[in-house]
Order: sequence, then C-alpha cells, then structure tokens
Amino acid sequence: MITVEEARALLFDLVGVLPSEEVPLAQSAGRVLAQDVVAGRNQPPFAASSMDGYAVKAAEVELHAMFKVVGESAAGHRFEGQVGPGQAVRIFTGAPVPEGADFVVIQEDTDRRGDLITITDEPGSKTNIRPAGVDFEIGTSISAPRLIRPEDVALMAAMNTPRVTVARKPVIALISTGDELVMPGEEPGPDQIIASNTFGLQALLEGLGAKVRVLPIAHDTVSSLETAFGLAQGADLVVTIGGASVGDYDLVSDVSQGLGMERSFYKIRMRPGKPLMAGRIGETAMVGLPGNPVSAMVCGYLFLAPMVRRMLGLDHVVPPFLTAQLTEPLPENGPREHYMRAVLSDTGIAACADQDSSLLSVLAQANALLVRQPHDPAREIGETVQYLPI
Amino acid sequence: MITVEEARALLFDLVGVLPSEEVPLAQSAGRVLAQDVVAGRNQPPFAASSMDGYAVKAAEVELHAMFKVVGESAAGHRFEGQVGPGQAVRIFTGAPVPEGADFVVIQEDTDRRGDLITITDEPGSKTNIRPAGVDFEIGTSISAPRLIRPEDVALMAAMNTPRVTVARKPVIALISTGDELVMPGEEPGPDQIIASNTFGLQALLEGLGAKVRVLPIAHDTVSSLETAFGLAQGADLVVTIGGASVGDYDLVSDVSQGLGMERSFYKIRMRPGKPLMAGRIGETAMVGLPGNPVSAMVCGYLFLAPMVRRMLGLDHVVPPFLTAQLTEPLPENGPREHYMRAVLSDTGIAACADQDSSLLSVLAQANALLVRQPHDPAREIGETVQYLPI
Repeated sequence: MITVEEARALLFDLVGVLPSEEVPLAQSAGRVLAQDVVAGRNQPPFAASSMDGYAVKAAEVELHAMFKVVGESAAGHRFEGQVGPGQAVRIFTGAPVPEGADFVVIQEDTDRRGDLITITDEPGSKTNIRPAGVDFEIGTSISAPRLIRPEDVALMAAMNTPRVTVARKPVIALISTGDELVMPGEEPGPDQIIASNTFGLQALLEGLGAKVRVLPIAHDTVSSLETAFGLAQGADLVVTIGGASVGDYDLVSDVSQGLGMERSFYKIRMRPGKPLMAGRIGETAMVGLPGNPVSAMVCGYLFLAPMVRRMLGLDHVVPPFLTAQLTEPLPENGPREHYMRAVLSDTGIAACADQDSSLLSVLAQANALLVRQPHDPAREIGETVQYLPI
Repeated sequence: MITVEEARALLFDLVGVLPSEEVPLAQSAGRVLAQDVVAGRNQPPFAASSMDGYAVKAAEVELHAMFKVVGESAAGHRFEGQVGPGQAVRIFTGAPVPEGADFVVIQEDTDRRGDLITITDEPGSKTNIRPAGVDFEIGTSISAPRLIRPEDVALMAAMNTPRVTVARKPVIALISTGDELVMPGEEPGPDQIIASNTFGLQALLEGLGAKVRVLPIAHDTVSSLETAFGLAQGADLVVTIGGASVGDYDLVSDVSQGLGMERSFYKIRMRPGKPLMAGRIGETAMVGLPGNPVSAMVCGYLFLAPMVRRMLGLDHVVPPFLTAQLTEPLPENGPREHYMRAVLSDTGIAACADQDSSLLSVLAQANALLVRQPHDPAREIGETVQYLPI
C-alpha cells in the first residue's frame, strides 16, 4: 500500500489545469484568476484631495495666511482654472487638485468669511494630496493564478475590468453505488439506508469551485453501473462511492476496467479511507471512494479537494497541517496514517471518542482531522499534534 | 463619537432575524439552519456488519472452529433465515447481521473450502457489528441555528431530510453615489473613476449568504438619490456608499431624512471608516458607508457582516480577535481605534506600509486587519497584537 502523499502525487498525474473562460466581474469572486489583470489606467487618474478643504499653493501656507476663494473642485467636477497667488479653491475629498495648487488646507484649520479664508490652525506639512497613480499605475498587474477575494474584485473594478478570465469549473460526476441506497425523501425498505455521501461531497466540492453532477444511484449490477458511467461522460472527474466490494465482486473496478480504465493505484495506508482506487478512463480521471460515509468525506478533503485546486490551476493545492495542543490523551497509533475526527477549541484539540468510520454524527460535531503518523506513540495532554481544519 | 462596539450594538437594533424558508437539501450548504432537523429513523436501521466476513454465534467463536455457510447477507439484501449452531452466513460491510448471529469473523481470519469455513487466526473479542442506531436514533436532532457545513448536509441526508428550513437570505441593496463614478467597462471622463466599492461589497456580502441588489449609480442630485432609494424598496438593508459630503451638502443624509429616515448615529471613533451613518427608513435598516474604497470594505467586515449574520439568526455574529506576533514595529496609535491593513504570515504579522484609505492595491495584498486600541503605545517586534482575518 502507498502513503497519502504518494497517492496524492499519483492523483495529480490524472488531472491537468483546465482551460479558462470569461465571466462578468460581479461573478468572479471565489473563482481562480487564470490570466493576469493589467491596469490600463492610473488610480487616481489625477492628483486628488484626500480631505475636504481648500487647494492652495504650498509656498503660501502658514498660520494666519489669507486666500480668496475663486472656485470649487468636487468629485467628478474639477475646477477648470488655475490657482494663482493668494487664491484658493474649495475642494472635496476625491476631487482633482486644480492646476497651480499643490497643498490642501483642511477645512477644520480654516475660517471662512464670504470669499475669504484664513488659516486659523497650524496646517502642518502634510499636503493632503494623493498623487496620480498612487494606488496603481498603467501596467500594474494582479497575477494569476489567484483565488479571487472580495478585495480583488474591488481592485479589478477600479482597474476597469468588466470581465475576468478564470479557470473553468471542474465538472465532477458523483456516482453513489449500492442496492441498499435510496435518495432522501424516498421510503427506504427494511434493508435500506439513505444516500448521504453524494450530498456531503457535492457541498464540499461545490464550495471549492467545482460543478457537481449528481447521477442516479447505481445498483449493484454491471448494467446499472455502466449506465451511470455513460451518464458521467463529459465530466473532468468521475467519482464513484462504494461498490468496491459487492458480494465477492469488486464491481466498480470490474466495470470501470471493462470501460478501459487504466488503474493508477488501489488502497492507501491510511485510516479511514484505505480502499481508495484511482485511474483514468480515456481522458477522464476516476476516483473510487470507499462507501463508509466518514471515509468518503475524509477522502474528499484529503484527495478530491487538492485535485479540484489543481484543475483550477492554483499553486498551493495541499493545505498545510496546523498544530494544537492535546486536551485529551491519545492511544498509540497503528501502522496506518490516521485522520481522527477531532474538536478544536480555544483550549486545544481532542479526538472524538468513537472513531468508527460509519458515524456521520461524529463527523458533523468535528471541526478538524487530527493527523497521526504510522506507529505514532501514545500522546499525553499538552503535547503538540498536527491537524487539518474541516 | 461612539466606539466600534457601541456602533455595532446600535446597528443590531436596526435588524432582526429574518423569516425562514425551505430549500432542497442539495442547496442547503452555506445557509443557516432555522429549524431543528430531527431524525425519524435509526442509523443504521439494523445491526450491521462493519467488515466483510462471516456472521456466526459469538459463543462458538474460537481458533480452528468450523462452520457451514448457509447463505449470504449483502448491503440491501439481508439473509432472511436464522443462523443456527455451527452455521455461518457470508456477510459484507454494511449488510444486516442475520438473526441468530452476534459476531462477524473477518474474512482474513478464515479459510473457506466449498461451504465450510475454518477460523484460522485468533479472531479477538471485537464483534465487528455496528448496533442499530449507533450513529443516530429516532429523535436525535441537529440544532438550529447552525451554519450548514458539508458534513451537516451528509448527516441530514442520512436522516432522510429532503428539504431543509433555513433563514431567508437578507436582501441588501447597494447604492454607490457620486458624479465621479462610472461602471467597469464604461469610458470614464477625465474627472471620473470606476465604481469599485459596490463590487467588492457585493462579493463580501454574497459570500456571507446575502442576496445583493446592485442599483444604478446615483448622481449627486436629490432626484437621482431619491430614485435609487425608490429602487431599493423591499430590501432588508439599504447601503449607500459615499455621498456623505458632496460639495457643502450631506446629500445622503439629507435625502434619506427627507424619506423619513430616523438616524441612529453618525460617525464612529475609528480609522478607517469614521463617517459611517446608520438609521432606519420605515422597516428598512440603512447604513451610509464612507466612499473611500478601503473604508467601505473595512466597514463591510466590521459592521455589515455582523448585521448579515444577525439577520440569518446566527448566535455568534462578531468574529473574535485573534493574536499574532509583530514582525515589524508599530508607531503609537492616535485617539481612534485603528484597523490597519496587514499581512499575516507563518512568522507573524506586519502592518502594510501605506495605510491611506484610498489604496485598494494595499487592501488586496492584506489578509488581516491589525487592531489598535485608541492611544495604543508604539509596539516592538515580537509583541503580541490582535487582528481579524480578512
């Protein structure tokens, strides 16, 4: 069996960076920038006042100096004339500083009588002028790849970018397999349970920026699974859940190999999620997840999420482990890397009591996966351990 | 002037928890659960095998014991008979444990010849059976309010919850004001800039679960602003950006008061974002943000985000400050609470060099707001400071 890291390297070989597409700026947040955005203008495009006050010549600025107000410069409406000696222009925040002026006396430091102002407080040396291009200049760029945040959207807007080139969303087809499964809202038979993995994985993958196609549940027959694979065509990644061991058959593996799947690997030295399988059918990556709900979700975080980030072209696709101090002791770990459901709080981290991989109720209470290396010895309260937030 | 905390308390008085609505489970992730979800079934609904193996009577389990295989129990297809003395039923992970059996010998511990199996390895004391209801039982509930995570979606699916009651999305109307503004994609005049705040705030608020209506830019006239307020009707919150000081007029305040706005407060003792204004027009909350791009976004994080969380009914609406160590010294702070744009890295936190509130390029590089209390003294490298991640 291979390690988690080895598995991830093999999975990355199965997917490439997807082509890009253009979206309106207002829909770009959360997408991954695929092409640098380059400013075609300066911001501000003119020297602008950073305060409400009076634009004057700096050389004339001193306490008790008087000026005659000859006009007004407001945001969007500049004063078209020149500011001459002894003259001032009423100016507002963001407005262009008129020609001839190189200082803005803030209004709190002045007294105005009719068209005359007097500087009544020490104006200091700060000019209160934002030079043209101080925020960005023509040619300033926002570099791809980059997960677009609200601040980036604002900056791209300021650069006059109505449309943004982003990575196309990876299309992921989810196939839940098993005669025991029915969909939420259906009436399960006495031997049946409700399909849950598809919904949890769909939420996880959509949150990462994928487009998820939930296919009908495949029954434990070759033809039903073949039908599902047929419906998955066109996806960038096909994910099956369960069906690795059905009766004495490895149904998913058999059917996918019948469809030409080249297997990359099967089984990982980890808990939960050991029976993970991956390969390629033609150009399409395929991952076969174990059917236990917790195993499927943990594999979603550890393997599918990095694959999605890779398809989106991001540089950092594997989130680094964080560290916290144990608030409960841990027993010795076995031979496999173990991702324990855990609760991280202000005081530290504690593994949940029951680590059975069928317990969704435990997973929903957890907010972290506590990472144990193979044969990690027993750990005491206060020791530092590694975790992944979920 | 009031403090940030006082302002937030007053803002919370302006908004209440919104009514709920039902959405399909598959669209519930990221929404806020408004009504407890109660399981109407046990999971698993039957005692289930946690391994592939043979279901037998525990009392008969010992090394070298032999059993006759009398049938098979697979997921979705239980063995309908009884397991008698000396008998075994082939069983697979997740399948119902047949009546009469109370132990599953894993297949790795057995040797099979035709219909006979022999226990070839010490089977241990673990029964490999998951009792009915071990994950959840009828009546187990997921408590509202709760921001729904992928794990919750999986758990709700397992509980057979096809539709989920969530808080309605707050509808927020954004009105950018100013003759100097044009939309991205338009050709600005020489005195004009591109509207950026609306787009940054839209991304921020939609990411928090709001539904944003971006209204046309209002010009600096009473009639244009009145038109925009008219278009905002039906929103839960109307946010204006800029226009607090237009020429010598406080246009947004004047127009909104003309429309019956009861002012709650004006100006906060903070940097950036001092000239924030808030009130209520009829049943609708109104917030007037300053027009400087960074001020508007910082106010979005500090004030609009908690208001959205409150409307969604969440318990924790104000994110707690985190702490980090300075990697660059800080000068003494002035009389106002200061939210400095900062970069948090593995080694600590450093405020960005230029804190001018017009610089979107600085905000886009920042990933944290470093929080300074009024008159906070100068700080050295290595001192611990507070921050908010952005």
